[in-house]
Amino acid sequence: MSDPIVTLTTDFGVASPYVAVMKGVLSSINPRVKLVDLTHQIPPQNVRFAAFYLYTALPYFPPGTIHLVVVDPGVGTERALLCMTIGGHILVAPDNGCWTFLETALSTPQVYRLENQRFRRAPVSATFHGRDILAPAAAHLSLGRQPEEFGPQVETWIRLDMPRARDGINSVAGEIVFVDEFGNLITNISAERLRQTPDVLMVGKRSFKKKFHWVRTYGDAESGTLVGLIGSNNHMEIAVVEGSAASRLKASVGTPVVVGWAR
Amino acid sequence: MSDPIVTLTTDFGVASPYVAVMKGVLSSINPRVKLVDLTHQIPPQNVRFAAFYLYTALPYFPPGTIHLVVVDPGVGTERALLCMTIGGHILVAPDNGCWTFLETALSTPQVYRLENQRFRRAPVSATFHGRDILAPAAAHLSLGRQPEEFGPQVETWIRLDMPRARDGINSVAGEIVFVDEFGNLITNISAERLRQTPDVLMVGKRSFKKKFHWVRTYGDAESGTLVGLIGSNNHMEIAVVEGSAASRLKASVGTPVVVGWAR
Amino acid sequence: MSDPIVTLTTDFGVASPYVAVMKGVLSSINPRVKLVDLTHQIPPQNVRFAAFYLYTALPYFPPGTIHLVVVDPGVGTERALLCMTIGGHILVAPDNGCWTFLETALSTPQVYRLENQRFRRAPVSATFHGRDILAPAAAHLSLGRQPEEFGPQVETWIRLDMPRARDGINSVAGEIVFVDEFGNLITNISAERLRQTPDVLMVGKRSFKKKFHWVRTYGDAESGTLVGLIGSNNHMEIAVVEGSAASRLKASVGTPVVVGWAR
Repeated sequence: MSDPIVTLTTDFGVASPYVAVMKGVLSSINPRVKLVDLTHQIPPQNVRFAAFYLYTALPYFPPGTIHLVVVDPGVGTERALLCMTIGGHILVAPDNGCWTFLETALSTPQVYRLENQRFRRAPVSATFHGRDILAPAAAHLSLGRQPEEFGPQVETWIRLDMPRARDGINSVAGEIVFVDEFGNLITNISAERLRQTPDVLMVGKRSFKKKFHWVRTYGDAESGTLVGLIGSNNHMEIAVVEGSAASRLKASVGTPVVVGWAR
Repeated sequence: MSDPIVTLTTDFGVASPYVAVMKGVLSSINPRVKLVDLTHQIPPQNVRFAAFYLYTALPYFPPGTIHLVVVDPGVGTERALLCMTIGGHILVAPDNGCWTFLETALSTPQVYRLENQRFRRAPVSATFHGRDILAPAAAHLSLGRQPEEFGPQVETWIRLDMPRARDGINSVAGEIVFVDEFGNLITNISAERLRQTPDVLMVGKRSFKKKFHWVRTYGDAESGTLVGLIGSNNHMEIAVVEGSAASRLKASVGTPVVVGWAR
Repeated sequence: MSDPIVTLTTDFGVASPYVAVMKGVLSSINPRVKLVDLTHQIPPQNVRFAAFYLYTALPYFPPGTIHLVVVDPGVGTERALLCMTIGGHILVAPDNGCWTFLETALSTPQVYRLENQRFRRAPVSATFHGRDILAPAAAHLSLGRQPEEFGPQVETWIRLDMPRARDGINSVAGEIVFVDEFGNLITNISAERLRQTPDVLMVGKRSFKKKFHWVRTYGDAESGTLVGLIGSNNHMEIAVVEGSAASRLKASVGTPVVVGWAR
């Protein structure tokens, strides 16, 4: 049997001792745990970014992987802490919608509140539930504890609004839902909506026709070209070859995007 | 038996090959070692930052964990390289005070100089003792070697000055000792000194009374509010809810902080 | 037997879900794999930076280590994907020269094209061969598959131009090949070329004589001093003690460097 994996996703930043603290707590409860950093650079308290991140990354992990997510603007308030199984994956996270997009992508989740005192550090601080409740829960899950041992099953939880793309007559309207580190703009327009190759692009108030090319992959156009393509997660992306579309277009999450067919 | 953990804390930065070099050296000497990155973003050569970082994080790891610390402005000079056991933890680090705050928090350390040639790479370079002496020492410790095999025990080592908070009549005066990635300002004022809820705050030359709130956790006040609270390591912190106190107050490590009771 | 190591080197950045995706793919194919992050902060699509990085770091890993490198400006185009064994190390990378400097440092490589469909995800996307071809190849190699199982052996591959230093009468001329996170400038002038201690330095158009000191290690001069020295990988470096030579001299990769003997 291989050692159990616990992945870590936080907004703690790379110089923060809080990540190290949680790794210490996890290793103390289960010295065999295999810690896998996903990212600690979720923009501070940006639950929406976390939601897209987890939706993109988590389905690739093997079933049974435990995913610890600490993006928690509501720490210490009445928001619940949850453990859920979804599509074979096990998540431990605050109830703030950070797994909304994952929920739509995978099967029906089973969700439990983390309430059992036995699996918490004592005393529980008011400001660091990642250390005192979430990391201990992930560690105990990695030792074979079952989600239902941690507290009562719940039927409702926070869901983020998911902006949906809309079909027009000769266009599809959506928005940017994620900006990656290359400055590529990932939209909520899925491949299925694009029955034809678009030849017009609007991003915010700027529109592009001749200066916009639809390609199969980044390398299919000259350096500096503004391109549209279907990205690796089946969403339409806007990119600048060997450059940053985010800087070029001054676009960010929420910026409207329309693609159309001029005919 | 689980594989031995070696944690890594450096100021090498995230794009640096030097971190990778040390991981290679560690894995070559002990292929079973479980490497756990704490951070490689200690601000360059900032021993004081490292000291606070280690003090905050290391106590959470299981006894027997080996902690490799390479923040080493004095590399190649006459400063010693040390191995110490303290509270069950094993540290390998330059003698520059980076474990001062940890020493005050845990039990009396046993300290040894790393002098045994047998556990060094040969030749030892003048500029990268992390690769040639410290990482090999950590790897050999993870194979079961004892600290006393590496060199003579020593009774003195570098200690950083620790700024201490002082009680006034209706106030406590301290300073900022750490700024985290959220921009929260951690002070050297411990919870024990605050017998009453403070209602006045001075940070540097700026004072706050009505615009300052004492809370139990970040989420207990409106977005944008300047708050004081007891943080997760039992120190008083200054924060801006969903914002950065460091930017708002233009404060950094060393900035004086006074809290008081107006009555 | 210890679990097999796969190292990861990419230009995906620290907040990118693409790193997490590849870790998921690797863990799904081989749950025993031990993932070791080298860096995900190779400057975007900077193959030359990657080449120096790998040359510096990889030789320290134990033979048999599998190194997954995804810096891939040509993703989706006709460039090949390769697996090579070199000096006992196993690399999986796009054919873009990212291992050029390593090739000169180690023994003759055996190189294979990654073409066997059996070891790919299906369908293969046009934009993320790291996920669909390279990570699966690394995972299958970690399960004991041999490089020749992945496709035909090849005899030619992309090599980067390597700028070479040139000897003058009383000087050696080279250039900066790498800037580390401390702002140290690593040149392509090797220790062997410096038979005497240089006493003149030119960086770009600026020359230094009295304000430049040759030292054995950073700590051998006062804070703020501009120094030259032989670095840990046997190349001449230019540094500012406790500061950044890159900022001070406004120098970067490609900036010419001349050292000389005034006599």
